[in-house]
Amino acid sequence: MTSSRQRSFALHARLARDTIPIGDLPLSRVLLMNDARFPWLVLVPRIDGIREIFELSASDQQRLIAEIAGCSERLKMLTGAGKINVGALGNLVPQLHVHVVARNQGDGAWPDPVWGFGAPDPYDPAEVDAVIAQMRDALNI
Amino acid sequence: MTSSRQRSFALHARLARDTIPIGDLPLSRVLLMNDARFPWLVLVPRIDGIREIFELSASDQQRLIAEIAGCSERLKMLTGAGKINVGALGNLVPQLHVHVVARNQGDGAWPDPVWGFGAPDPYDPAEVDAVIAQMRDALNI
Repeated sequence: MTSSRQRSFALHARLARDTIPIGDLPLSRVLLMNDARFPWLVLVPRIDGIREIFELSASDQQRLIAEIAGCSERLKMLTGAGKINVGALGNLVPQLHVHVVARNQGDGAWPDPVWGFGAPDPYDPAEVDAVIAQMRDALNI
Repeated sequence: MTSSRQRSFALHARLARDTIPIGDLPLSRVLLMNDARFPWLVLVPRIDGIREIFELSASDQQRLIAEIAGCSERLKMLTGAGKINVGALGNLVPQLHVHVVARNQGDGAWPDPVWGFGAPDPYDPAEVDAVIAQMRDALNI
């Protein structure tokens, strides 16, 4: 069996710059957006050259939706968010990546999307390790 | 076997108001957003009471990603779009619905998301039947 894990993969430079790695699920690398305004995960299938969900094999599409659902549910439980926003846009970064964002009526962008909203507020370096540890624990990565 | 098609389903009033029905896939009702600025589909799993992807059964999640992928690929082929944007937000309409939007560098919102961008530009009533017929043909519904 050819596993997606055996294929070539390099994270896009902009995703690498804007995020902090949390860990790997069977298909996707899970990243934390370095923006303390929103609990915000990014899932990147570890296969080079994929821009659209339909370019994944059917089995990798199934892995992806399972990973989106699992991360969404765990992020909602962890944060007590009222809603999870899921988005695969890729207008700026062509590498397929899926945003999973915890939203609340009180957040600064509500009810608009977070994409393109204001400037990121990077995590305090003194706190980010604890946030990452909390996410790893919640996501069981 | 209990099929999702046998369960109760009513389309949210706001989705009914803002869209034109195209047809049904095995899981989802497919709608055309009544906004001529963007070729824009909305997929609504025909199960009442679902707000988040993770609330769907594993098999319905698999149906959903297959329908998202199929509609994305066919919409891209039909329109020649440079990118497909996929989003499940639900900040305003709680019923789970997935946007599949054809995007191009030349469109009015590029590279920002379409959600919350300006006001919809409804289709010309003289043209909308042809658009729907074209979408039905492209999506094979």
